[in-house]
Amino acid sequence: MTEPTRLEHDFLGEMPIPASAYYGIQTLRALENFHITGIPIKAEPLFVQALAYVKKGAALTNKELGVLDPAIADYIGQACDRVAGGEFDDQFLTDMIQGGAGTSVNMNANEVIANVALELMGHHKGEYQYCHPNNHVNCSQSTNDAYPTAFRIALNNKLVGYRDTLRELADAFAAKGEEFRNVLKMGRTQLQDAVPMSMGDEFHAFATNLREELLRIDDSRRLIAEINMGATAIGTGVNTPPGYAGLVTKHLRQITGLDLSLAGDLIEATYDTGAYVQLSGVLKRTAVKLSKICNDLRLLSSGPRCGINEINLPALQPGSSIMPGKVNPVIPEVVNQTAFYVIGADTTVTMAAEAGQLQLNVMEPVISFALFTSISYLTNACRTLREKCVVGITANVEHAANLVYNSIGIVTQLNPVLGYEASASIAKEALATGKSVHDIAVTERQLLTQAKWDEIFTFENLIRPVFMQ
Amino acid sequence: MTEPTRLEHDFLGEMPIPASAYYGIQTLRALENFHITGIPIKAEPLFVQALAYVKKGAALTNKELGVLDPAIADYIGQACDRVAGGEFDDQFLTDMIQGGAGTSVNMNANEVIANVALELMGHHKGEYQYCHPNNHVNCSQSTNDAYPTAFRIALNNKLVGYRDTLRELADAFAAKGEEFRNVLKMGRTQLQDAVPMSMGDEFHAFATNLREELLRIDDSRRLIAEINMGATAIGTGVNTPPGYAGLVTKHLRQITGLDLSLAGDLIEATYDTGAYVQLSGVLKRTAVKLSKICNDLRLLSSGPRCGINEINLPALQPGSSIMPGKVNPVIPEVVNQTAFYVIGADTTVTMAAEAGQLQLNVMEPVISFALFTSISYLTNACRTLREKCVVGITANVEHAANLVYNSIGIVTQLNPVLGYEASASIAKEALATGKSVHDIAVTERQLLTQAKWDEIFTFENLIRPVFMQ
Amino acid sequence: MTEPTRLEHDFLGEMPIPASAYYGIQTLRALENFHITGIPIKAEPLFVQALAYVKKGAALTNKELGVLDPAIADYIGQACDRVAGGEFDDQFLTDMIQGGAGTSVNMNANEVIANVALELMGHHKGEYQYCHPNNHVNCSQSTNDAYPTAFRIALNNKLVGYRDTLRELADAFAAKGEEFRNVLKMGRTQLQDAVPMSMGDEFHAFATNLREELLRIDDSRRLIAEINMGATAIGTGVNTPPGYAGLVTKHLRQITGLDLSLAGDLIEATYDTGAYVQLSGVLKRTAVKLSKICNDLRLLSSGPRCGINEINLPALQPGSSIMPGKVNPVIPEVVNQTAFYVIGADTTVTMAAEAGQLQLNVMEPVISFALFTSISYLTNACRTLREKCVVGITANVEHAANLVYNSIGIVTQLNPVLGYEASASIAKEALATGKSVHDIAVTERQLLTQAKWDEIFTFENLIRPVFMQ
Amino acid sequence: MTEPTRLEHDFLGEMPIPASAYYGIQTLRALENFHITGIPIKAEPLFVQALAYVKKGAALTNKELGVLDPAIADYIGQACDRVAGGEFDDQFLTDMIQGGAGTSVNMNANEVIANVALELMGHHKGEYQYCHPNNHVNCSQSTNDAYPTAFRIALNNKLVGYRDTLRELADAFAAKGEEFRNVLKMGRTQLQDAVPMSMGDEFHAFATNLREELLRIDDSRRLIAEINMGATAIGTGVNTPPGYAGLVTKHLRQITGLDLSLAGDLIEATYDTGAYVQLSGVLKRTAVKLSKICNDLRLLSSGPRCGINEINLPALQPGSSIMPGKVNPVIPEVVNQTAFYVIGADTTVTMAAEAGQLQLNVMEPVISFALFTSISYLTNACRTLREKCVVGITANVEHAANLVYNSIGIVTQLNPVLGYEASASIAKEALATGKSVHDIAVTERQLLTQAKWDEIFTFENLIRPVFMQ
Repeated sequence: MTEPTRLEHDFLGEMPIPASAYYGIQTLRALENFHITGIPIKAEPLFVQALAYVKKGAALTNKELGVLDPAIADYIGQACDRVAGGEFDDQFLTDMIQGGAGTSVNMNANEVIANVALELMGHHKGEYQYCHPNNHVNCSQSTNDAYPTAFRIALNNKLVGYRDTLRELADAFAAKGEEFRNVLKMGRTQLQDAVPMSMGDEFHAFATNLREELLRIDDSRRLIAEINMGATAIGTGVNTPPGYAGLVTKHLRQITGLDLSLAGDLIEATYDTGAYVQLSGVLKRTAVKLSKICNDLRLLSSGPRCGINEINLPALQPGSSIMPGKVNPVIPEVVNQTAFYVIGADTTVTMAAEAGQLQLNVMEPVISFALFTSISYLTNACRTLREKCVVGITANVEHAANLVYNSIGIVTQLNPVLGYEASASIAKEALATGKSVHDIAVTERQLLTQAKWDEIFTFENLIRPVFMQ
Repeated sequence: MTEPTRLEHDFLGEMPIPASAYYGIQTLRALENFHITGIPIKAEPLFVQALAYVKKGAALTNKELGVLDPAIADYIGQACDRVAGGEFDDQFLTDMIQGGAGTSVNMNANEVIANVALELMGHHKGEYQYCHPNNHVNCSQSTNDAYPTAFRIALNNKLVGYRDTLRELADAFAAKGEEFRNVLKMGRTQLQDAVPMSMGDEFHAFATNLREELLRIDDSRRLIAEINMGATAIGTGVNTPPGYAGLVTKHLRQITGLDLSLAGDLIEATYDTGAYVQLSGVLKRTAVKLSKICNDLRLLSSGPRCGINEINLPALQPGSSIMPGKVNPVIPEVVNQTAFYVIGADTTVTMAAEAGQLQLNVMEPVISFALFTSISYLTNACRTLREKCVVGITANVEHAANLVYNSIGIVTQLNPVLGYEASASIAKEALATGKSVHDIAVTERQLLTQAKWDEIFTFENLIRPVFMQ
Repeated sequence: MTEPTRLEHDFLGEMPIPASAYYGIQTLRALENFHITGIPIKAEPLFVQALAYVKKGAALTNKELGVLDPAIADYIGQACDRVAGGEFDDQFLTDMIQGGAGTSVNMNANEVIANVALELMGHHKGEYQYCHPNNHVNCSQSTNDAYPTAFRIALNNKLVGYRDTLRELADAFAAKGEEFRNVLKMGRTQLQDAVPMSMGDEFHAFATNLREELLRIDDSRRLIAEINMGATAIGTGVNTPPGYAGLVTKHLRQITGLDLSLAGDLIEATYDTGAYVQLSGVLKRTAVKLSKICNDLRLLSSGPRCGINEINLPALQPGSSIMPGKVNPVIPEVVNQTAFYVIGADTTVTMAAEAGQLQLNVMEPVISFALFTSISYLTNACRTLREKCVVGITANVEHAANLVYNSIGIVTQLNPVLGYEASASIAKEALATGKSVHDIAVTERQLLTQAKWDEIFTFENLIRPVFMQ
Repeated sequence: MTEPTRLEHDFLGEMPIPASAYYGIQTLRALENFHITGIPIKAEPLFVQALAYVKKGAALTNKELGVLDPAIADYIGQACDRVAGGEFDDQFLTDMIQGGAGTSVNMNANEVIANVALELMGHHKGEYQYCHPNNHVNCSQSTNDAYPTAFRIALNNKLVGYRDTLRELADAFAAKGEEFRNVLKMGRTQLQDAVPMSMGDEFHAFATNLREELLRIDDSRRLIAEINMGATAIGTGVNTPPGYAGLVTKHLRQITGLDLSLAGDLIEATYDTGAYVQLSGVLKRTAVKLSKICNDLRLLSSGPRCGINEINLPALQPGSSIMPGKVNPVIPEVVNQTAFYVIGADTTVTMAAEAGQLQLNVMEPVISFALFTSISYLTNACRTLREKCVVGITANVEHAANLVYNSIGIVTQLNPVLGYEASASIAKEALATGKSVHDIAVTERQLLTQAKWDEIFTFENLIRPVFMQ
């Protein structure tokens, strides 16, 4: 038994549509045309929601400006509410990577909303004379303003959850910073022993490092909040009634609760992908930082006996199918890899942005795919890193301190007293002979008294040095 | 009602496993630990198949070398056949991006195969004393040789389908090359009119351009066919019986039908990701070429009235929600975007490869994610480009020829007769005045006779120039 | 005759230094060690200047805090003034890409300044007992705070010139926007004819697009203005007297005239490269935009007879060694290529930033090389684009308008009157038959009167559409 | 006093040229137009040489085919010999990044060679009626075949020196592999202690890893050896006499000594940049490997007391301006940074290759800039790494062995005897308590006898494990 169908047509011809489908002929064509990722638009429910917001905003505005029958506008509005509520997510099936600059996504929304509205009106799906995807739902719009506006609203909302997760991760590092406040450890530059420090300061620095990202996300959200509704095809606003652009922006601010603003130059805004490049750069920067931090966590937990071993990461799973008892830093590793994905996605965004031509950038779908997945993956990575790793990190306090006391790096503390060259000479002998700095400086060479030594090398002065000459 | 469970343990503790699950405790831990992409290993059935091949090869070898009970080995072999056949794909659930260098994938395979074998033996799942994931299924192996070997086998097989699809695309261009053999058109360099050519030669060049990629894929397949079975943990072959590495490679050649070879330096081979970087570079190169070709198709079909308009792409869907009758080059556009994805994925592979440390590159899972998706997407893009676009391209023969005859670029044909400077002077006047080259050269300046002109500017000589002075 | 030398030593041994050299033994070691680019630090005079600023700021602070002999501090200050003035640029010879996290650059500065000060004091070069590179010039500093602080000051100053040049380019586009205000042309999306527009609006949009970059540069300058002076080796401030960090920052604000601020977390600030990644992302974004704009300029000037040919770029040089009279868009082409360089450099910065480890990012020299060259090249490209191209662009007014009138794209103007489907039907017939939209709509189908047509298709309404139903 | 000049003209007008200059008006225009990098073509003498080769090959062929006066051809040939010999390198002044697809470089060569030939003929520079840059030197050529052919010849020759340097580096690692053959050390995966190995095998693996690159370079050289001479403007061979393409290729094989071959599809070959993308990918792959190796060298030499410290790198320069006695791994660091540069340059090449349009890729100059610098920098980095680092590496034999004996990782050796689970239990206890594997396995749990232990844990079996059950 085949599914019953209804016939729909567009200017290329006629096709049977499954009777149960809320999408229409243009969506069906897109389903036949685009098979790249296999990942449909519905994988990003915030995008579906944002499309419905945009359509509702347009309907309200069109009604107010007298270019859409008030009754039809109201039904469209109700249909949009249901779509925004997630009831019809399963109707948004076009592939994430698609040609046509998002026309298929826009038409998918137009068709679904038209058919939901038709049913609300008591008509059947497909009776577009009562509510038409193009003439009514898409009224005063083009893909070229509706699609990017919806994309930007979705991004903006998606960034909220990401920002929260990142903040929580930073907070977890800060909490460890507090916990490890009085853990003395060797600081290292260029992987060489440098000077002592507090492990708490090291972890607190991770928090600082990530908290800076929150401000960058806020910047991005501001740039992303600039929309081009009313631009229609190329920014000239053709087919929009006077006052439309400003009014629809106002409606969208109310509907979304976001601080949206209308671009000052709609010609430019219609092809500009600068805000996406900026956002992608921000995501990349965070990825770079997360990767660096995870590299550090892996270094600091290396060993347990032939590495640094200053900290322990939680043991989450056996680390080897052959080496018994081995436990690996699997969470930092998965975060590193997520970071590499995000950095790669930034290249994709860059290429796509550069490929814009004349009045439009037709590559926005791959930009949306790259940004949506990058934000999702980063959010997942940050949550995983916090929950499965950071909160459970413990310090090997004694071992970390012993490394300091046995080090040559503490000789730097003698600089102000002995000068760089004398200190260097001590360091050189220590390295060559295996002797301690103390033995050479105090006992052998008698360059300073034991009392002075003790004054300089207190725990407090090692971990948070005070200047003394 | 909750699902019944069985208890399993590893050296980190005990966990309840769903009774119906063929995977075991280590897979379950991985499922809890890794939530990044949401895309499970089973999305790549060739990888599951290759894991089963590897485990079967190892079992056969272990049996032959007397380190595995023959009966157990045979049951493992049968279990591997069933897994390779796809019966248990739904048991391979760990996330594509994972920490642990693939340990979770390897243990997923070990556990599923052990449990399938246990049932074949008449035991229950989890009764590992009869067939143990580590001691038996993973015998003489480490993740660090089993995982990359399976990965390489899967890549090799996946490249076969990709290569075929790419070849078919090249053939489609070649067929158009034949069809358009005698279509005269203007050649363009730097987007400026250059000299005339055959549209058939232009399309044939696309075929040539892509056919070169087939050889590069063959190169990659050769590099990818080098495996490190027998290396175990770090390449020293610890825990393998004498002769194991060579023999298991031989068995894997037979099982897979691939021309696999054992790496000469197993220490190096265990951490080396060079073959992946090379393959990623090959995929990127093809992506670059496809993107360039699609840019050309979009340029050549630009218009219809305010662009070049030498060719028509098949009309697949209405091109605008607002501009009636507009039809867009949606297929080349989707291919461009796929290319940008692949180029981005190459950055991911590069970063991951660079991040290898000491005896292992722990970032292989993201490399596998990047390469598998790049090959899939490129395969889809090539198929789409051929089916939905190339085979349906038509030439606007008359318009293309008219552009040539009205052009200034044909003046180059006069170089050998008049010299570069005289020709340049004609061109300059033509540009300034709008006159034709013929009018200036023959009528006004009388630099050559009409007869000589006719000899030079035959259709045949324009489309495939013959030297004449 | 060999050049006379003086002997210098460090803790690795003794070496002869050319007597005339102001640099010392550590610089000489660096010259022997690093031969990668062949491009010396002196190629970036703003960096040399900034190093001198930093050393002067430290000397003043050290004097004020009583840790440096006032007389020596004053001589160091005078020496710094001379170095900042450019007198000793030729002494800064270490390779742009160097190991040691900038230690060689820092020591190069320390040595040159010490020797200049020594001569000012009446001593000979190398008599470091009177003024020592480490003990005096580098007093209270480490490479790890002095180097990045100087780098950030230099970047900040370099961005001023870049920003001005970019602004001038944007202004030049804006002027063209004004000039072309009433030039009617076809707008294009997806390279397909879309709807009419003003060429002035198109050029004005280029201005808008680039002016947005100025704000992003300002953001970067703010981030770059955060310094870590007083952090010394790893951010603990070891070897600095109390109050040093705040005071030296205040001095540096005065010396440089920049709004420098001290980082709140010196541990983090000492390894953080986030501001460089951000800046690199900003440069990349501008490069992406410039490349897109230049692609457009090349498209719009394509032809002259077989392309779009709406504008003419200034003819700067013969465009071909074989095709007479050919003139190419060489300036946009060179800008495209510069953009690709900058985009590549962003990858370099990303890799380098990710490679930071623990308390330091040792890869800062290649970051500095990448950023300095990117800013220089972009500045040159912007200046070249303005001077050699934009200011001389002319419009082919009549041709551009004719394209519009002959187009199908004008049918969109009929949407509000006839509806999308009727309009699409007209467009389809026009495309198939070559007829004009007017003929089909008014004459054949009589869907609107000539009077209504004339009302809709005024020049004013085409170029800046007014809504009418 | 101003320099005397001569007047030259082209179709854009007339300009004074410095009388001493061998270049002419088109070069001068290029000098005025392109100011991006400040790095002139002469920075790459092999490129200048290759241009002369190409021009000589063309002259010989033109003479043989009767399209160039034999006397003029001979003078051109002599001039080419002198240019190829490096006498006129200082005349090749156009900027490395330039618009026009290399026209300026090609004309620079044409003009210099014409003027050198003119003087050889007894004429004055600029008397082009006797030997004309376009009509004679460029006869039967276009920039679009002459430029890429010269570029490919230059690349091919440049790769020879690079390959040698890389091979020497690999050999140096191999020599260390031999030297460290019997140094026992801990192998590490995921930065965690894994199983023991020979340090010699680790260093030998570096050699293997790099030697594989030599084969990839050979592949590249083969691809790069395919030229398109005779294609002229777009591959149709317009303006070339019959037989020209094959004959000039033959001459160029003789002149250069390279195994050059003529592309089979000249239309394709004229725009194809695939060989550059492939070569850039090869360079990137080597960069990735070098970076990984240098990361390893830095890890293995980390410490000296708070890191791994298995090896010592030569001390080349004091490592800190503040930390006395600190010595840093400056050479691996500079190699890492060079690698990041090369990886960035690959992005540049990718973008430039993708930007090709229709019959030409106009972005070749930036590709040449990227490839030339990448090869130079990599060559320098490989030489530096060998000379300044690898040959001087020493092993801390005793420390490395002690790490092994104190490790838990040796428990893997017990797998075949005790099984994975028992071994894991031992490991777990060792980790928790700090006890040794021996104490737990032999003394406490008595799972094996001391004799069996001794049999398993011989030095020989640790360093190169033999299977035993």
